[in-house]
Amino acid sequence: MKNLTMMTDLYQLTMLYGYYKNGMDQRRAVFTMFFRDAPGLRYAVMAGNAQFLDYIQALRFEEEDLAYLRSLKQFDEGFLAYLKGFRFTGDIDIIPEGSIIFPGEPIVRVDAPLAQAQLIETSLLTLVGHQSLIATKAHRVYRAAKGDRVMEFGLRRAQGPDAGVLGARAAFIGGCASTSNVLAGQAFGIPVSGTHAHSWVMSFDSELAAFRAYAACFPNNALLLVDTFDTLESGVPNAIRVFEELRAKGHKPLGIRLDSGDLAYLSIQAREMLDQAGFEDAIICASNDLDEYLIRDLKQQGARIDLWGVGTKLITSHERSAFGGVYKMNALETDGVLVPKIKLSDNPVKVTLPGRQEVYRLYDQAGMAVADLITLDDEVVDETRPLTIFDPQDTWKKMTLQDFRAKKLLQPLVRGGQPAGELPSLAQIRAHREAEEASIWEQHLRLVYPTAFKVDWSDRLWQLRNDMLHENDKQGEQ
Amino acid sequence: MKNLTMMTDLYQLTMLYGYYKNGMDQRRAVFTMFFRDAPGLRYAVMAGNAQFLDYIQALRFEEEDLAYLRSLKQFDEGFLAYLKGFRFTGDIDIIPEGSIIFPGEPIVRVDAPLAQAQLIETSLLTLVGHQSLIATKAHRVYRAAKGDRVMEFGLRRAQGPDAGVLGARAAFIGGCASTSNVLAGQAFGIPVSGTHAHSWVMSFDSELAAFRAYAACFPNNALLLVDTFDTLESGVPNAIRVFEELRAKGHKPLGIRLDSGDLAYLSIQAREMLDQAGFEDAIICASNDLDEYLIRDLKQQGARIDLWGVGTKLITSHERSAFGGVYKMNALETDGVLVPKIKLSDNPVKVTLPGRQEVYRLYDQAGMAVADLITLDDEVVDETRPLTIFDPQDTWKKMTLQDFRAKKLLQPLVRGGQPAGELPSLAQIRAHREAEEASIWEQHLRLVYPTAFKVDWSDRLWQLRNDMLHENDKQGEQ
Repeated sequence: MKNLTMMTDLYQLTMLYGYYKNGMDQRRAVFTMFFRDAPGLRYAVMAGNAQFLDYIQALRFEEEDLAYLRSLKQFDEGFLAYLKGFRFTGDIDIIPEGSIIFPGEPIVRVDAPLAQAQLIETSLLTLVGHQSLIATKAHRVYRAAKGDRVMEFGLRRAQGPDAGVLGARAAFIGGCASTSNVLAGQAFGIPVSGTHAHSWVMSFDSELAAFRAYAACFPNNALLLVDTFDTLESGVPNAIRVFEELRAKGHKPLGIRLDSGDLAYLSIQAREMLDQAGFEDAIICASNDLDEYLIRDLKQQGARIDLWGVGTKLITSHERSAFGGVYKMNALETDGVLVPKIKLSDNPVKVTLPGRQEVYRLYDQAGMAVADLITLDDEVVDETRPLTIFDPQDTWKKMTLQDFRAKKLLQPLVRGGQPAGELPSLAQIRAHREAEEASIWEQHLRLVYPTAFKVDWSDRLWQLRNDMLHENDKQGEQ
Repeated sequence: MKNLTMMTDLYQLTMLYGYYKNGMDQRRAVFTMFFRDAPGLRYAVMAGNAQFLDYIQALRFEEEDLAYLRSLKQFDEGFLAYLKGFRFTGDIDIIPEGSIIFPGEPIVRVDAPLAQAQLIETSLLTLVGHQSLIATKAHRVYRAAKGDRVMEFGLRRAQGPDAGVLGARAAFIGGCASTSNVLAGQAFGIPVSGTHAHSWVMSFDSELAAFRAYAACFPNNALLLVDTFDTLESGVPNAIRVFEELRAKGHKPLGIRLDSGDLAYLSIQAREMLDQAGFEDAIICASNDLDEYLIRDLKQQGARIDLWGVGTKLITSHERSAFGGVYKMNALETDGVLVPKIKLSDNPVKVTLPGRQEVYRLYDQAGMAVADLITLDDEVVDETRPLTIFDPQDTWKKMTLQDFRAKKLLQPLVRGGQPAGELPSLAQIRAHREAEEASIWEQHLRLVYPTAFKVDWSDRLWQLRNDMLHENDKQGEQ
């Protein structure tokens, strides 16, 4: 992992300078990252933790970085010397990769000296925000495909190299079966897949010659692209002819790929042609500007597609181009005591939750998730007694849980600046995502107008926030 | 620049293998990159050439890459040995960075042995596509701001580290005055800017104490964020108080930043308060989910904003998350002759232009651009004689130019695998973008419903394409 220490906003460094000059840099601070409710993002799939940990471990300013900062003529030499020894020494808790997460709840909690907790904001939001965005989009596409395999092949449309490579990782976490991206395959062990382009067909004198040449190279792995000239008149008949030649030599042809035209109509026709020729096992792969909505509609119209190739709209999270994660201060040490902090706003949904928090997922006896509950960190959620939870906006909406199970969602990632344990493999992350998904009711994961999953606050947290809101006027005027 | 050779789609390698096995890899091929017409992308600003050149120069498979490819069990040892010596040895022509470009015209032309021209497709589309997308978005925002400075500060919402860093570069090309991204500043020499966050204010006992502490650190560079508690009741009065203290010590305060609430109303009120206190030179910076449309409307409503901070919607090109660049084969050597190639499609706009092409921009006597003209590469555009151009779809729409000037748009980037010359600096690229912009009529750059700029084809190109379309049926059936 490259050192991304300088990948930060200038204001993090100007604030660091201020904290340093005011002797505040070592005060203990608690920040949390969360994301806000938005259409198309009523739930998300957590991802990017591994790259965030890499960033934390590599965090240090090199001589060339200090030389550059000196050139800005904003900082004094004492501060630059201070930066030279700057390391992350705090604690980080995070919801594990592959988890289903909901708006408004803490997904990362940083408890560290103020200067450190402040500096890491930008990279945390970039790394976890990006991958969670793409994992979520991939999960929606994967769910729309209802068990069919989805191949991610958006690299060429990705917003730069990292967006392609880290995006492929996130897409695999979200549910894609493979990627076209060779570098992502090499870096993360994700299965790679791919066949040929129109240019292959155009490089030969005829489509048939092109198919024969490709099949000769990959006799057991030939997925032939059939739409260069005319899918049903030329492509599929030529593919079948080549498949017959392969069969005669004892090979088993893989299938065909459609990349234009009406994918419902063409796949139904092509399926019939392949079946009639005795190639019931040959698969049909389809691509062309697919997303979760088009896949859902094509399946509903009886499309006979076995493998979905999804590019642009997955790798860029078309429709919702940013996760919109934010990182806010919840508490700051003052005179040796951790004091809750709140950020106010004219916009009520932008008012933050004060205090050092925990978040629990509450499950019913059948193991289904009922609600998430945010508490102050010293509260105990007692599974042996009935628990009444309430909607933090409409507080008259209440529900009492009996015989529930509570799971703490934030898990240690970093302790005293060092990794808190082994990270799970991508296979384990995918298994975790499947288990999480199975415990969430369908209505919360629906593509359009999902029912909001309950994210409630404990009595004490609600009361603390309410008290601080009413103390507001004093703070600004002091 | 890191080696991005493996950042490719697997199908590029399976095709390479096929070309290699069929003895076709050395045949001369010509490909072009272009982008398709789409709402919100009726023109674009070219960017990313420098990173594409870096990629070409670093292109080579390392031992670990070959070991990974071997592990896929799809390629033979002869091919892996061939990849070990694989370099780019061809020619690349490209429209310079900062140029205004239009849909359907060749923006990159690759003339190289088939295997090489094929392999580089993915990285070309990723690198040039991403930066051109962001440069274009930045240009729209910059134009909406009508001379006000625009600060790019989207890093935290970018789709990964490269998206933030290369995006900042592209935004600077497009017209942004600065970036918050320290790494982009360090890597590319882009001016960096930034002030403080709400967390700074929350770290002090009062807003006034926070402002005083910040002003003490940056007495001549204090841009105070005034919306943590209440903008007009608390933030602006506290800022003015601190500005008065600075003035008394002989400093000149920089200004304030608004980050929530109604930016038109608040900026007008804040301006009045600052002016009344004698701080007519103090600037007002505004941010909060800005894009070109909101900036246009705020200006129209009299907002008194001097500096616009634009994040998420710029760095992700919200609304249009991908450039949609494509790369198609135009010609392939057959029996020693370069033969034009065409890609057909049921969708007429997806049929490609055959033959090795040039593209010219035609200017009138006043120096304004009239049309772009795509020709075959051996055609001469004679400025001394009248030239009749026509719409390639509606061929009865004709126009005859007299006394025009023709500029060849594609410029050498690579010759025989080596850089064709020095690349321009970012300052030169920005100057070029300004000159280009001045030669394009406003109606082609309008934010909504711009008039399409003419991109016409020469007679010979039109005729060649038409002939090849009518030969189509034969090709598929052979």
